[in-house]
Amino acid sequence: MKLSLVAFSALLPSALALWPLPTGLSNGSTPLRLSSGFDIKINIANAPADLVAAVETAKGYLANDKLQALVVDRGASSASAIAKAKSLPSLTLSLLSTPKGPVSSISEEAIAPLESRVEGYTLTVPSDGSGAVLKANSTLGLYRGLTTFGQLWFDWDGTTYTLSAPFQISDAPAYPYRGFMLDTARNYFPVSDILRTIDAMSWVKINTLHWHVVDSQSFPLEIPGYTALSEKGAYSASSVYTASDVKNIVTYAAARGIDVVPEIDTPGHTAVIANAYPEFVACPGSTPWASYANEPPAGQLRVASKAASNFTAGMLKAAATLFPSQTFSTGGDEINANCYATDNETQASLAASNQTFAQALNTFTMANHAALRTEGKTAIVWEEMVLDDPVTLANDTIVMVWISSDDVAAVAAAGFRIVHSASNYFYLDCGHGGWVGDFPAGNSWCDPFKTWQYAYTFDPVANLTAAEATLILGGQSLLWTEQSGPENLDSTVWPRAASTAELFWSGPGGNVDTALPRLHEVVYRFRQRGVAANALQPEWCALRPGVCDLLA
Amino acid sequence: MKLSLVAFSALLPSALALWPLPTGLSNGSTPLRLSSGFDIKINIANAPADLVAAVETAKGYLANDKLQALVVDRGASSASAIAKAKSLPSLTLSLLSTPKGPVSSISEEAIAPLESRVEGYTLTVPSDGSGAVLKANSTLGLYRGLTTFGQLWFDWDGTTYTLSAPFQISDAPAYPYRGFMLDTARNYFPVSDILRTIDAMSWVKINTLHWHVVDSQSFPLEIPGYTALSEKGAYSASSVYTASDVKNIVTYAAARGIDVVPEIDTPGHTAVIANAYPEFVACPGSTPWASYANEPPAGQLRVASKAASNFTAGMLKAAATLFPSQTFSTGGDEINANCYATDNETQASLAASNQTFAQALNTFTMANHAALRTEGKTAIVWEEMVLDDPVTLANDTIVMVWISSDDVAAVAAAGFRIVHSASNYFYLDCGHGGWVGDFPAGNSWCDPFKTWQYAYTFDPVANLTAAEATLILGGQSLLWTEQSGPENLDSTVWPRAASTAELFWSGPGGNVDTALPRLHEVVYRFRQRGVAANALQPEWCALRPGVCDLLA
Repeated sequence: MKLSLVAFSALLPSALALWPLPTGLSNGSTPLRLSSGFDIKINIANAPADLVAAVETAKGYLANDKLQALVVDRGASSASAIAKAKSLPSLTLSLLSTPKGPVSSISEEAIAPLESRVEGYTLTVPSDGSGAVLKANSTLGLYRGLTTFGQLWFDWDGTTYTLSAPFQISDAPAYPYRGFMLDTARNYFPVSDILRTIDAMSWVKINTLHWHVVDSQSFPLEIPGYTALSEKGAYSASSVYTASDVKNIVTYAAARGIDVVPEIDTPGHTAVIANAYPEFVACPGSTPWASYANEPPAGQLRVASKAASNFTAGMLKAAATLFPSQTFSTGGDEINANCYATDNETQASLAASNQTFAQALNTFTMANHAALRTEGKTAIVWEEMVLDDPVTLANDTIVMVWISSDDVAAVAAAGFRIVHSASNYFYLDCGHGGWVGDFPAGNSWCDPFKTWQYAYTFDPVANLTAAEATLILGGQSLLWTEQSGPENLDSTVWPRAASTAELFWSGPGGNVDTALPRLHEVVYRFRQRGVAANALQPEWCALRPGVCDLLA
Repeated sequence: MKLSLVAFSALLPSALALWPLPTGLSNGSTPLRLSSGFDIKINIANAPADLVAAVETAKGYLANDKLQALVVDRGASSASAIAKAKSLPSLTLSLLSTPKGPVSSISEEAIAPLESRVEGYTLTVPSDGSGAVLKANSTLGLYRGLTTFGQLWFDWDGTTYTLSAPFQISDAPAYPYRGFMLDTARNYFPVSDILRTIDAMSWVKINTLHWHVVDSQSFPLEIPGYTALSEKGAYSASSVYTASDVKNIVTYAAARGIDVVPEIDTPGHTAVIANAYPEFVACPGSTPWASYANEPPAGQLRVASKAASNFTAGMLKAAATLFPSQTFSTGGDEINANCYATDNETQASLAASNQTFAQALNTFTMANHAALRTEGKTAIVWEEMVLDDPVTLANDTIVMVWISSDDVAAVAAAGFRIVHSASNYFYLDCGHGGWVGDFPAGNSWCDPFKTWQYAYTFDPVANLTAAEATLILGGQSLLWTEQSGPENLDSTVWPRAASTAELFWSGPGGNVDTALPRLHEVVYRFRQRGVAANALQPEWCALRPGVCDLLA
């Protein structure tokens, strides 16, 4: 069959630019535009300041997005329909019930225990010229609804419009944890990059920034009482997140419904601690590094040393005070046995205390978790702490499965709550070749590149019983930064992290074919807001939903 | 063996930050700094304006690069040596012989016939406080030498210094063509992105921008007399390179020693021409697209139509007037036989003229090349015009081999000059998954990602006789932009395109292990100059040459 290009030029129906797709959505096909006097009202006595600020931000996006519809004529053929459309005068926010005490802020609700967060909302946008209504049981839910409201609109010649009114949306996330992990240790990211990333995360309802803040290569975190770590371990004096920077970041995130979960990996990935505290680190800089660590430089905390253990617990406890989150990751991945086997001090400590390494690791880890618990923190660990180097984790520990999604079932069988972080689906850094030197044909260890489509097809409950499935908290995209920095942050993360955000908000089973036009709209809207999201296809395809499909 | 981190903190010798590596280089280990009154003098009567401007630009880089050495202490331990170093008062440029007429400008020499360009130079930088001397047989050679001079220096606390004086450099390229190809049709790039890319290219002595300016998806080039093509074929009115934009780009490039070689692909990759001239295009938008083209939308110029042939020759001739280059690519890749087999008009034309398709293609192509020759242009084609859809190319035609480096020998056996452009080594877009829709497990057709290391190990004369080897003009990196745009331009292209630039300037056989520290310096210097080059490794590795090698 032949189809002339002229047919392609006709106006195709605009996809609904909603991402993640609301779990309950009905809409019509009536044009509607924002009134020139459009306002957002908060019908809540003594509304929290962060909700007031969020409304101002939402109004700013409505005024400045200026996103034309992704159709061939960008909206021109709808001009008269838009001009004749009724005007939406307002959006009114209200809570479904009035709390007895003060209304909780978005920031407070963003860091509440995961399973207790209320992110659902209902949003009604009539097409008859009456006002829109957003309701929720929480300010956090209202914030999510505001985000959705901001995605309904396109611009034509200065008019902010939709062709798809009325809307009736009843939405809530499938999973409580929807995250993005950023490694700021392999390469440093200025605070401004992190704040911009937080904004972008909020636009697709990601609610957790898993901040892998330090690692063997650098220690950019200023911890009260332990400032030598960053003074001697950051790449430079200007490559440090000061306590003030951290407060800025966590405050900014919380106001956008995002919990910042810090990770200080232990006992591996800690070579840099030797710069300040050489006595606590085994095999620092040992070579060949590949015999002592998965990547250079080698170096692990001396788990069998009482002094090192006390130092670590104290340092973690001090770090925990910087972060309001109720969770804190102590890592626990990639522990190298040879490093300890060849460390005379570790062997002497084990002999003196008549402990095995496994016993010492258990004591060390439990002391760290106990210290964090005194600060009100629940521990998060990588999967090895269950499967490879098992310790006696508290039942409430959250486990991140990264090596392979195949390992999820074993962690679930052990009864722990799980955050999907599998390298074979969610690692954004894969597929760019080997980064170690003197390795001309080196491949990425986690080849191939993880496309948005592939992550989108992930099944969060594969191979799990119904009971085990309840242990799944959600999942996240992850960016390890051996081959990344501020230069490629936006284009590497976006829109792929949005794909995973929809998977865990809207639930699995989405169709990549119908998702693609909406994801293009994410890309183009992100760019309008200053985030350099990467092209998924030629613009020709972005303007013609379905026409560049494999079998189209 | 164990090595403590303390040892890593010691100052390692700075790599020489030269890229591409000069073909003749000797240097010492004497500190030297730029005098506070340092000046660059042009000892040439009536020096061309572009050389004067290039000197000002070079002085700007010297003043503003502020690149600290890539060593652990960033230069601190050299502070006293730097403070005590002798000062370089000046760099003096001169020509080795005085021409009878006016001195040729860089811009004139940049577009001279490839084999006649003179890019060599000698550069002497004494360590005794006497002035540096740059000599060449051409202003283009002086420009290359200026670029090298600008790479000798680091910054410590406001002092611009080297630890490696004196320098004696005698340099000239191994190959005359060192290119970068940019596709501006799949996604559009603003002029500012192209100008920034030209600057970056000049820093590593790339001398050709192969501009794949239009393709089936969009026609962003305004051609005098054929403006309907861009009016109806560009993504938007603002996504057009006007004649004025093109003049700006080619002028900017030439002044930086770069020839802009345009490509208007024919007869395939031309669906968009149907927007303005539907009568000249076979199978426009035919579906399923995969039966009619390698990517959507389908559409090819009607090679058997006299009117289409006249149109094409006229359009190419008009386009040629925009570009001062002496070469022009008419493409010729991926001709789809089914498109023509099912096009009634093409079949009728062939029958009426009693021609085969091959004969018609030959007539069409020869007419185009003849039209270009009246404008003084030598034709460039893709390899299919020799191997798959052979036409009677003039002996001086330049052939780009893209499908596989395995095809080079066959093209060389046919006696044509060759530009290496093989997808299996030089395509910068590979490895990011399939981009067509409804294809969740789709791979990149040219997987895997092409690392800088892999391109660096390419042998330009593999499987060629000595005589055939003389046909190799050089090679280039290429960025097709189905999955790229301004957002990832810098980080996708740099530093990988620099790797290929060194391969074809310094010649093959380079060692990736010793190249890596220098390539880090390219990355960091590019960033200082506003080009967002991508991280190759953690900064920890960048500051410790060799320590992150595979077997280190």
